[in-house]
Amino acid sequence: MRELKLLGICGSLRRQSTNAGLLRAAMAELPEGVTMEIADLSAVPFYNADIAEKPAAVRKLLDQMTAADALVLACPEYNYSLAPALKNALDWASREPNSAPITGKAVAIMGAGGGMGTSRSQYHLRQVCVFLDLHPLNKPEVFANAFTGAFDADGNLTDTKLIQLVASQMQALAAWARKLQG
Amino acid sequence: MRELKLLGICGSLRRQSTNAGLLRAAMAELPEGVTMEIADLSAVPFYNADIAEKPAAVRKLLDQMTAADALVLACPEYNYSLAPALKNALDWASREPNSAPITGKAVAIMGAGGGMGTSRSQYHLRQVCVFLDLHPLNKPEVFANAFTGAFDADGNLTDTKLIQLVASQMQALAAWARKLQG
Amino acid sequence: MRELKLLGICGSLRRQSTNAGLLRAAMAELPEGVTMEIADLSAVPFYNADIAEKPAAVRKLLDQMTAADALVLACPEYNYSLAPALKNALDWASREPNSAPITGKAVAIMGAGGGMGTSRSQYHLRQVCVFLDLHPLNKPEVFANAFTGAFDADGNLTDTKLIQLVASQMQALAAWARKLQG
Amino acid sequence: MRELKLLGICGSLRRQSTNAGLLRAAMAELPEGVTMEIADLSAVPFYNADIAEKPAAVRKLLDQMTAADALVLACPEYNYSLAPALKNALDWASREPNSAPITGKAVAIMGAGGGMGTSRSQYHLRQVCVFLDLHPLNKPEVFANAFTGAFDADGNLTDTKLIQLVASQMQALAAWARKLQG
Repeated sequence: MRELKLLGICGSLRRQSTNAGLLRAAMAELPEGVTMEIADLSAVPFYNADIAEKPAAVRKLLDQMTAADALVLACPEYNYSLAPALKNALDWASREPNSAPITGKAVAIMGAGGGMGTSRSQYHLRQVCVFLDLHPLNKPEVFANAFTGAFDADGNLTDTKLIQLVASQMQALAAWARKLQG
Repeated sequence: MRELKLLGICGSLRRQSTNAGLLRAAMAELPEGVTMEIADLSAVPFYNADIAEKPAAVRKLLDQMTAADALVLACPEYNYSLAPALKNALDWASREPNSAPITGKAVAIMGAGGGMGTSRSQYHLRQVCVFLDLHPLNKPEVFANAFTGAFDADGNLTDTKLIQLVASQMQALAAWARKLQG
Repeated sequence: MRELKLLGICGSLRRQSTNAGLLRAAMAELPEGVTMEIADLSAVPFYNADIAEKPAAVRKLLDQMTAADALVLACPEYNYSLAPALKNALDWASREPNSAPITGKAVAIMGAGGGMGTSRSQYHLRQVCVFLDLHPLNKPEVFANAFTGAFDADGNLTDTKLIQLVASQMQALAAWARKLQG
Repeated sequence: MRELKLLGICGSLRRQSTNAGLLRAAMAELPEGVTMEIADLSAVPFYNADIAEKPAAVRKLLDQMTAADALVLACPEYNYSLAPALKNALDWASREPNSAPITGKAVAIMGAGGGMGTSRSQYHLRQVCVFLDLHPLNKPEVFANAFTGAFDADGNLTDTKLIQLVASQMQALAAWARKLQG
């Protein structure tokens, strides 16, 4: 089977983010033949058409996207919609000719938040994927409650059942990405 | 009638933004007894819980929100959803105790973009308003096509019919804000 | 204070519907000066422009809507979106000139379902309200889990905390409807 | 190449529906090796768990879904969301064990309506597809304006450009369905 490279992107910028914790859990549970790195959005500015030259952090992000076979999007929910940093990362990609760094790729979406596990935000993200011609997995959806002890103080996922869910999502993503690549 | 102060917030950061042009058109068409200023988001960073002290640009934005009776949100559409800079401005407000700078206020939403005039983005914004207890006007909706000559090269709105639509939205906003204030 | 008449409309047609149970709980918890009746959708056909004469069940529904000061919509979630019977009731109203039976009225939305309490469906309903110029309450939102013992076998709401939540929503609705009526 | 069977489902029940016209245009423009039939929803009642025995019209619809390799959904927009008859057809399928008649299948979405061509409704439909594990095509999206002469009085699509768009969507659907079948 073809090797697959995943790129994880986290919408929360804080150090102890539980959404970043979900990505680390995913990275620890990858199926064989799959590798993953996690993007650093801390120096990626808001997209603005007046920015004449892409900052280094943006160039690195776009290179990582281009190299990836599939994306793993950790999607917080802020006020019933998307975290700006995650949306902004995708917006930068969309300004490349034909959205080339990401178009057509498989996507897994996961999120940690309140009782609905960021679902309201995730459905907005799925609408974004339509325009970008991304192919999010339908199932399993990963909705993690961040306030009931599933994460430690550093944002690490410690709940066994959720770890298994993340692992099964990574398996589904690998199969889905390979199917889409034909 | 009570004086009303509006605060305009534009999701696009570029100088020649047509969405900023919509806000300027609104400011030129205010009903009597209504004043408006426009927020400057250029130095507002991504919200991040690790930022210990609010930057000056954020403090100014929150003060302007607090002083406003109602908000006028110029809502671009990026990849079928919200512009991160606009969402981020609202996210900052939501981190104040009880979302005090904005909660309960009347809102008008307008947008300039492709053929659907940012409608896809505007409905996401309306969902955000539910959580923030903002009260967006139902009608008139302002969907401006930015690619058919309604704006000049500097982003100024020049189309008479759209200018009238924006003016009628400002009248509806003033009436709605006064009704909500009781 | 002015008397208020509410009309409850339930998207589920089955006899033991927990969504109907929510409406009955609301009717039992009305504030003073508020009365409520519940619409019967069982004989309301799918809207179809070819139907030359409105069936009696439709005429009765439209009359009840016209007489109501505000609507209480019990909104199940079927496959992540609206129950057709509820949407269809609103569609019938929208075909009257200027959507006269409902336009401009206050609305409370509640729902019973899986772990997310029909939230995905409720946000779709809120988008419908934009077009119909309905004014849904922002808060409190009522998301009831129907599978954890909050309802008895006949669909009656028995959970004290949820009953109080429904009661507080009815109080908020009465205040909101009176504010909107000026 | 494997033969493919498509099933068209139209959310509008009226005889001169432009959405039905889109389906007929699709049927006239199928790629080689693809056949299509159109479901008849006129006798399909609202789903109701109390209905003990599935009516004949429902059984026929489920059989057609089961036999289909992919679905073509003509999606009107009523009041900014789905047509109840279309949603209801999918709801019936979802009540079969594991949503067996439709799960995992490729989908094309098209719609005729006002200036936004039913886009608001189509994004709600896409959210439904997540739960049902359907795989809608991202592109091309088909948004047809029904009020600018693209259809004749019987609802037939006569606009050459739109006919070509529908034809290209059918080609994309065939390729997508074959990729998903592996």
